[in-house]
Amino acid sequence: MTLIVQKFGGTSMADVDTIGIVADIVAATRRDHDVVVVVSAMSGQTNYLVDLARSLQSVPDLREMDVLLSTGEQVSMALLAMALKARGVDAQSFTGGQVKVSTDQVHGKARITSIGDTAIRNVLAQGKVAVVAGFQGVDQDGNITTLGRGGSDTSAVALAAVLHAQECQIYTDVDGVYTTDPRIEPNARRLAKITFEEMLEMASLGAKVLQIRSVEFAGKYKVPLRVLSTFKQGPGTLITLEDQQMEQALISGIAFNRDEAKITIMGVPDRPGVAFSILGKVADNNVEVDIIIQNTGVDGLTDFTFTVHRNDFRQTMDLLQPVVKELQARELNGDDRIVKVSLVGVGMRSHAGIAATMFKTLSDEGINVEMISTSEIKISVVVNEKYLELAVRALHRQFDLDQEPPD
Amino acid sequence: MTLIVQKFGGTSMADVDTIGIVADIVAATRRDHDVVVVVSAMSGQTNYLVDLARSLQSVPDLREMDVLLSTGEQVSMALLAMALKARGVDAQSFTGGQVKVSTDQVHGKARITSIGDTAIRNVLAQGKVAVVAGFQGVDQDGNITTLGRGGSDTSAVALAAVLHAQECQIYTDVDGVYTTDPRIEPNARRLAKITFEEMLEMASLGAKVLQIRSVEFAGKYKVPLRVLSTFKQGPGTLITLEDQQMEQALISGIAFNRDEAKITIMGVPDRPGVAFSILGKVADNNVEVDIIIQNTGVDGLTDFTFTVHRNDFRQTMDLLQPVVKELQARELNGDDRIVKVSLVGVGMRSHAGIAATMFKTLSDEGINVEMISTSEIKISVVVNEKYLELAVRALHRQFDLDQEPPD
Repeated sequence: MTLIVQKFGGTSMADVDTIGIVADIVAATRRDHDVVVVVSAMSGQTNYLVDLARSLQSVPDLREMDVLLSTGEQVSMALLAMALKARGVDAQSFTGGQVKVSTDQVHGKARITSIGDTAIRNVLAQGKVAVVAGFQGVDQDGNITTLGRGGSDTSAVALAAVLHAQECQIYTDVDGVYTTDPRIEPNARRLAKITFEEMLEMASLGAKVLQIRSVEFAGKYKVPLRVLSTFKQGPGTLITLEDQQMEQALISGIAFNRDEAKITIMGVPDRPGVAFSILGKVADNNVEVDIIIQNTGVDGLTDFTFTVHRNDFRQTMDLLQPVVKELQARELNGDDRIVKVSLVGVGMRSHAGIAATMFKTLSDEGINVEMISTSEIKISVVVNEKYLELAVRALHRQFDLDQEPPD
Repeated sequence: MTLIVQKFGGTSMADVDTIGIVADIVAATRRDHDVVVVVSAMSGQTNYLVDLARSLQSVPDLREMDVLLSTGEQVSMALLAMALKARGVDAQSFTGGQVKVSTDQVHGKARITSIGDTAIRNVLAQGKVAVVAGFQGVDQDGNITTLGRGGSDTSAVALAAVLHAQECQIYTDVDGVYTTDPRIEPNARRLAKITFEEMLEMASLGAKVLQIRSVEFAGKYKVPLRVLSTFKQGPGTLITLEDQQMEQALISGIAFNRDEAKITIMGVPDRPGVAFSILGKVADNNVEVDIIIQNTGVDGLTDFTFTVHRNDFRQTMDLLQPVVKELQARELNGDDRIVKVSLVGVGMRSHAGIAATMFKTLSDEGINVEMISTSEIKISVVVNEKYLELAVRALHRQFDLDQEPPD
């Protein structure tokens, strides 16, 4: 019998009603497969515990925080095991420690170093469903660790890899990955399939269906991932390796990100070390930079532009005032009313002219492109935020994303 | 530095305010002692989890129930460790599994088979307070087990025994053991000291300060126990071995129990096996019997009387109807409006006449004694429940229990 790993997040484990729905899904899957279920804490539980902790210690101890937060998944796994047994499906729960999910010692954002499979295989061999606490592990000294944000997805993928599962199914409150956000483009279409690389670009660009780390992990270990909804039946979206046999659509989707701001230093002396003196200062203050563009200089001067998270915008502008003086640059400009819009698709690799079509489409709508950045499978542009909806819809139509790609 | 084990129950761990009070007590103790703290779940938490479980599985699976309930203490231990660190007292928490509290496999009421001391000793050697989850352990296969009602007291006593603690302090919401219930006798006095044997009689007779099992355990391993209040400063009551050096008070206290009912079978043929044919039937139905009295028979007939818990009264009367017929006994009588009042004191051993004084005192008040039962350190009488307060006050006064015993 083939094995499926299913992961249910906090909204799926919200209360006894939704846990009942989860149990029904697992029970149905169990008819044809061995099943390992990975669960998150009940939604709200983590915030409740964090609030308790903060009211006792302003900056809670990281080790004890992991001890505290790991109880959330432990509650979930016990409740789901009970709900399964109530449906006549035998089940047994496992903490991270009981599975032997070994991690490094970085409390709050530990990395998995190894996963035992013996305990789970024994339980599967007895015909039981294994219900595993996501998000948690133990370090070499037996201390409880947590994997940080999105950790349950990572737990599920890692278990699927170790157990050679046929598929790792991530249940959320959306029924798949869409060509773009349906709230902006009502014709957005659920993708039946998308590659790991495309998914990484979609996720990092703001389509927050899956945590980047778990997609990277799945890609690395070639674990087919499927995103489905707990609350709406359907096949979801399969995230998998690129299929050479298949005619690939040019473009898989349009991602966008409203969380960025743009900073430009104009009239910078075009000499070695300038980029470092600007970005070094920014990095020293733990501000992450996304797109970076430097034009070829004219008359020994150049313009240097980059984007940061909007929350870091003010701080970064302040940081750079003295740098601009030191460099004797002409001017420091900033704009936090911009968005990034990106076309994503592995099909781009073998087709020229996508960028040209993109720019023409935007130009026809009167949208000025302020920055451009490209990679092998995506083209991103920065535009004024007022154009976001217009740009997404125009591109969605232009590249026929509402149509199923030809087989 | 000597070691103190301190245990805090659910009402002490009720919320962040009371956890703060607990942390203050531990921090104060830490100045002069090594400290191991054992904690219960926050009050209300266990009921909340039980309700969740029952709404998912009408009779929740015992293994998964232990997984679920053990999270309560895990939350408490992490929060207390944080509260201690916030006060500059270094601390580290331990689950039952991390301490290596090994138990048998009886989920829900496991017995401790051994306790590791290495992990805790290491942490104490680093100058930290060890905060341990009460109530929980692991079986030989690493499954989480719980010790059942009052389990945290047992955890504390067992740890104190293994670590050779100077004292095991049980913090509750009462400030010690009293000569009797102050709600009935306002002159009731807090006992500075009481023996394990007396405490067992006081506890089993309704003075519910400590769980019987933990007192037995403490007596067996000679761990001095102290009962104190989290919310009111004071020396509490020390429960310890009998002190031969000390002039012992005749009577330590007056316990009572309102939860009993009396059943009499009159005119039973006085022949071997009769007691068994009555009590065997009762025991087969899991009804526990307390006092049993059989008078010497007259004319080959005898009266057989015993007490059961009031909740079992109706069922037991129904059970016995056919037995009475079989035995051709004369009559079956029952009375659930009775109480048991007991004098407790190790001093009784060496003093005659206590019983006589007791009966005279009750008689002077016009109280009819319906049953009498004695052991080496207690005398119990069953009387009509309307006399409870009168009997307790009269005896309290008669034996000068409001007075400190002479040194």
